Amino acid sequence: MADMDLVLGVDIGGTNTKFGYIDRTGRCLGASVIPTHADQAPEACFLRLHEAARALWATLPGAHRLAGIGVGAPNGNYYRGTIEDAPNLNWGMVDLRGALSGYWGGLPIAVTNDANAAALGELLFGSGRGLRDFIVITLGTGLGTGVVVNGELVYGHSGFAGELGHCIVEYGGRPCGCGLRGCLETYASATGLACTARELLAASSAPSALRESAEPSALAVFAAAQAGDPIAREAFRRTGTTLGRKLADAVALTSPEAIFLFGGLAKAGELILEPTRKALDENLFHVFRGTVQVLPSGVPEDHAALLGTAALIWKELKS
Amino acid sequence: MADMDLVLGVDIGGTNTKFGYIDRTGRCLGASVIPTHADQAPEACFLRLHEAARALWATLPGAHRLAGIGVGAPNGNYYRGTIEDAPNLNWGMVDLRGALSGYWGGLPIAVTNDANAAALGELLFGSGRGLRDFIVITLGTGLGTGVVVNGELVYGHSGFAGELGHCIVEYGGRPCGCGLRGCLETYASATGLACTARELLAASSAPSALRESAEPSALAVFAAAQAGDPIAREAFRRTGTTLGRKLADAVALTSPEAIFLFGGLAKAGELILEPTRKALDENLFHVFRGTVQVLPSGVPEDHAALLGTAALIWKELKS
Repeated sequence: MADMDLVLGVDIGGTNTKFGYIDRTGRCLGASVIPTHADQAPEACFLRLHEAARALWATLPGAHRLAGIGVGAPNGNYYRGTIEDAPNLNWGMVDLRGALSGYWGGLPIAVTNDANAAALGELLFGSGRGLRDFIVITLGTGLGTGVVVNGELVYGHSGFAGELGHCIVEYGGRPCGCGLRGCLETYASATGLACTARELLAASSAPSALRESAEPSALAVFAAAQAGDPIAREAFRRTGTTLGRKLADAVALTSPEAIFLFGGLAKAGELILEPTRKALDENLFHVFRGTVQVLPSGVPEDHAALLGTAALIWKELKS
Repeated sequence: MADMDLVLGVDIGGTNTKFGYIDRTGRCLGASVIPTHADQAPEACFLRLHEAARALWATLPGAHRLAGIGVGAPNGNYYRGTIEDAPNLNWGMVDLRGALSGYWGGLPIAVTNDANAAALGELLFGSGRGLRDFIVITLGTGLGTGVVVNGELVYGHSGFAGELGHCIVEYGGRPCGCGLRGCLETYASATGLACTARELLAASSAPSALRESAEPSALAVFAAAQAGDPIAREAFRRTGTTLGRKLADAVALTSPEAIFLFGGLAKAGELILEPTRKALDENLFHVFRGTVQVLPSGVPEDHAALLGTAALIWKELKS
């Protein structure tokens, strides 16, 4: 009988649900994707996931055994195995672990949010290997945070630890989907970058390639910034400054050795890293100077989200 | 031969150095104090500490054995056993563990800062017993922070984790001794409270008992607030609001079950607790609502600082 050599990693998003079979070394033997259909009942999604995952399993070459299922989902709760009132899923409270147990009974099933999964992926398969204290920031539509302390992911009392994105950087500032105003993720995210660029365009009449579109996207801001557009560059500078200031707070609390930036916006490289590092340094209590680096994620980009969710199970089986 | 039943706890402050012998249950069998004389060389202080601690040892009734020495000091570094550039000591970099080993060779000697010691005291002898995730905030002349995650004190990569007091709450705000501007501790501390009261007095001509003094102290503000003075009460409200906002950030990062307030300003009770809780609640991401309490410290007030430093050693010997 084959060794338990594969984990099914599942990344549930508002639009698509990705899944794949990952081995202990972080190699993906097969991956696929189904639409989430967040407007339908969650059970319909889980049923289709089970069917598609079984179909994919049948295509894997060689003999394998499944060790468990790791799932990353917005507002995924590690302790309860639930998805709780995720804004972009419209599912309310879902007993995800319970539902999947109906299909994969007897196997370990672990749930967390996507940023925590990213941090576990960094710890097991990325640049976090061998580090005891680091933070992963996922910069996509929103801003997620995974915190590792003493080599362990921090879930906290609630199971939801790591929500730097919903720390307030501007009291009474931009409205956030969570109901607060001025949350970090309304500034430091792809959405926030595009919003800042639009504000800058409205506040001046300086020429900019971004004026060609009525509502320039984050990708358009990135392209313009690469081409040297001053308004696009200023939007990146402000985004990084806001992020770096808040990272200084995070460093003061848990003193990580590294902060890894992950996700779409992180791909902008130095455009986002340079102002982030500058603001972090300027706002850092002196005892922390030189003790922390801001770096791009070291998780291989293909299937990065799946590696993290699979790491949920591999980490548990190791400890 | 007697069991190793006592730890020498030492609390080095800018003015006085307290020390005492603490047993495993947190009982203090004898305590005393010497002046620190921070203007003289640190070795002179350690020599006097050793002499005074030996003299105190000789007065203890019964037979005892020393298990170790725990020291809390400003900018005390757990990994290196050092005091590093503490603003109110003027000693630069001091190899505290090395110096004390010269007097107490062969015994475990552990060093941390006063707020981390307070958190360990809470964990072993206070209201933190049985909790896995909590934060202790010490509100005195400054603001210290001790963070407990998964039942362990967080030292972080640098050994200095837990410096919420030097997170910035007002960019370009009040100058802080650390060189930054607008640090939390310049607002949320005894010093910050008195400063806020003086600003409020200058900004209005409303009658206030505080006008009787040219420079009302935090204690005077406390007395006036208890007597219902509106300016003193407003100073407390603003202090608590600033603190509660920053606590919301800390909750978002590590999701503690409780935040314990410790030290002089915490003795103001509801005057500081109520506005702190209100601001925390108003700025908290919804998933954390109802998961965290703000409470006064549960460490017995007598010798509280010594209990924490002794806990440094008892915790290590336990694990």
